[in-house]
Amino acid sequence: MKRKKIALLGSTGSIGTSAIDVITRHSDRFEVCAIAASASVDTMLSQITTLSPRLACLADPAAAAELQRRLPSGCRTEVVTEMQGLLRVATMPEIDIVLAAIAGAAGLQPTFAALQAGKDIALANKESLVMTGELMIAQARENGCKIFPVDSEHSAIFQLLDGRSTKDISSIILTASGGPFLHKSQQELQQVTPAEALRHPRWDMGNKVTIDSASLMNKGLEVIEARWLFDIEPERIKVVVHPQSIVHSMVAFVDGTILAQLSQPDMRGPIAYALSCPERLESVMEPLDLVAQGELTFLAPDTRRFPCLELAFRALRQGGLMPTIMNAANEIAVENFCAGKLAFQAMPALIEAVMDTYSAGSQKLSIDEVLETDQRARAKASELLDSGLNAHTD
Amino acid sequence: MKRKKIALLGSTGSIGTSAIDVITRHSDRFEVCAIAASASVDTMLSQITTLSPRLACLADPAAAAELQRRLPSGCRTEVVTEMQGLLRVATMPEIDIVLAAIAGAAGLQPTFAALQAGKDIALANKESLVMTGELMIAQARENGCKIFPVDSEHSAIFQLLDGRSTKDISSIILTASGGPFLHKSQQELQQVTPAEALRHPRWDMGNKVTIDSASLMNKGLEVIEARWLFDIEPERIKVVVHPQSIVHSMVAFVDGTILAQLSQPDMRGPIAYALSCPERLESVMEPLDLVAQGELTFLAPDTRRFPCLELAFRALRQGGLMPTIMNAANEIAVENFCAGKLAFQAMPALIEAVMDTYSAGSQKLSIDEVLETDQRARAKASELLDSGLNAHTD
Repeated sequence: MKRKKIALLGSTGSIGTSAIDVITRHSDRFEVCAIAASASVDTMLSQITTLSPRLACLADPAAAAELQRRLPSGCRTEVVTEMQGLLRVATMPEIDIVLAAIAGAAGLQPTFAALQAGKDIALANKESLVMTGELMIAQARENGCKIFPVDSEHSAIFQLLDGRSTKDISSIILTASGGPFLHKSQQELQQVTPAEALRHPRWDMGNKVTIDSASLMNKGLEVIEARWLFDIEPERIKVVVHPQSIVHSMVAFVDGTILAQLSQPDMRGPIAYALSCPERLESVMEPLDLVAQGELTFLAPDTRRFPCLELAFRALRQGGLMPTIMNAANEIAVENFCAGKLAFQAMPALIEAVMDTYSAGSQKLSIDEVLETDQRARAKASELLDSGLNAHTD
Repeated sequence: MKRKKIALLGSTGSIGTSAIDVITRHSDRFEVCAIAASASVDTMLSQITTLSPRLACLADPAAAAELQRRLPSGCRTEVVTEMQGLLRVATMPEIDIVLAAIAGAAGLQPTFAALQAGKDIALANKESLVMTGELMIAQARENGCKIFPVDSEHSAIFQLLDGRSTKDISSIILTASGGPFLHKSQQELQQVTPAEALRHPRWDMGNKVTIDSASLMNKGLEVIEARWLFDIEPERIKVVVHPQSIVHSMVAFVDGTILAQLSQPDMRGPIAYALSCPERLESVMEPLDLVAQGELTFLAPDTRRFPCLELAFRALRQGGLMPTIMNAANEIAVENFCAGKLAFQAMPALIEAVMDTYSAGSQKLSIDEVLETDQRARAKASELLDSGLNAHTD
């Protein structure tokens, strides 16, 4: 069997390291040819030793320089840096599939470049679909590239649809764990700290997505992502809170049937499926014992306490550049919350205030326009913050 | 669109009437050409009025004669009777698909005849697969007939597999409601009455299957049915108790993923899918609201209190004629339990005693041999009953 050649964008993060775990246990099937990360020199060095990639990129130039200095003698890995380096990793000619797992808007350009170069994508970077879903899907279609979702929710739906048309589907139902603050009152939510927000009850993930998960913005971003991945209207996308994170998402059909995908909450599952589908690799996750699990529960999401979910639906309905604007404002909000400069419940207020500043703009987007809007919306969010938005949120 | 021509074997029972409900709401797609039942003259007359079938069979000759007398003048439905009549309904040349919904061993011959005549089958009569699974599947394959399962559990698995091979499957997981006696102690089970056993908490079904459901023999029969329908070894068939009857069954894959099919407990779902798949008909069942449902729970089956499930696994492992022997003994046990002549917990004891009397016999079966064994096992069960089996069961 010919081994699948993989580039890992975001190799040192949570998704990247889980992917390497899957790949190294199936080295008869996969080969990592290129890896890229932001600035983690130590982790990158150890990955170079394990994987012997042809190309390694650290986006931070100082970190890349240090990596270069510390490469073991005789190492044949070429070190590259900055956006140019990321783009080389994403578009390397021999690569079959790119795992796009750089968090946030920073992942957009390399992911898009990979599609332009005709690569299949295992997509963990949800922001690229949030910002430019329509463009990405069109680009993938034009070049005959496949986009395999790596989010557990979208992987679930992808597995359930299994190539079926969405004609017989009444809705797709994304599950949300509800995060660490599911049962906190509006009052209590005013007081929660970044440390508390980072303690996710089910999933071990990067900081950005963990905060987004606590605010339900993560689910909002996933709603937008689902809209493009599955070509389904916002009205047919539902969200249900499922605290155990065992049912990863569901598809409801017109006859009254629901199909659901379940597993342990373990990102190796969706990663492995994205890399190997339609085949399944053996023993990727611990088997799920539903008797030991005992019960699965379902609740409606409370958009009064967690307004970010509703903001995402609004951005999706408004369309055009609004999801980009919302996403940019959210990234600034999360940054400032983590830095202790913004209260938890001030995050949706800031995002809404930024969204209110703009109109959705043109419905036909270009990447440049999206990137420029992203920058403008970030600047606007920072400006609103400086002008003391915190004061008028309650 | 050409309408699908249907024969209903068991038209006046629970499955038959649900099927007619589905069919009459989709009369643009389906046409009932022939119906057959045991002896319900009134229901049959009303079905003849509604459906205008070419052929109507009541197996009971006296009932058929009465039906003939009471046919409205000008009615062009031909009335037939006995096994010959059932076989005419099952093999009528213009029929595309036969709904096989005659309960118990009585359904075997017409179902098999339909396959021999090259008809697709919507199979609700699980006993025919229990008794002659290997023969039925071979016959279907030879004639290029499809067998669409109508049991909710097998329909669930059929929907989830959706033509996928069983290669990547680690197990199929049949769910069982646990029936009305799920939480009764061994002691209490000695005392339960037929009336209590017939009060199923979730499903509205015929008497035979409701009693089987209370003893878990129904699940045992379904295990054997699944073995043949999905060509999967007994070791890869699991059973889990799920009291809400919302998850109708599941498929577990080698990577640790489980896919599940959910809906309201409503037989119109599996019936409609068997008749229309791969398409889905609209609004067959009430949509499932998981938030209103709240929770789904899962328990291990207790084969100490419900030994019938284990007896079925034993029969399947022994193979040959043993499932036929077990099924025959079970039918006699259920009859006698319903008649107040056998205690609930004496049913598995009787079945086991009959099974212990025989060896599994030849592994290559013929229909005649199966039918003859069925008769012999029934006689043996009655004989053991007469000799006072009840006495030595505790």
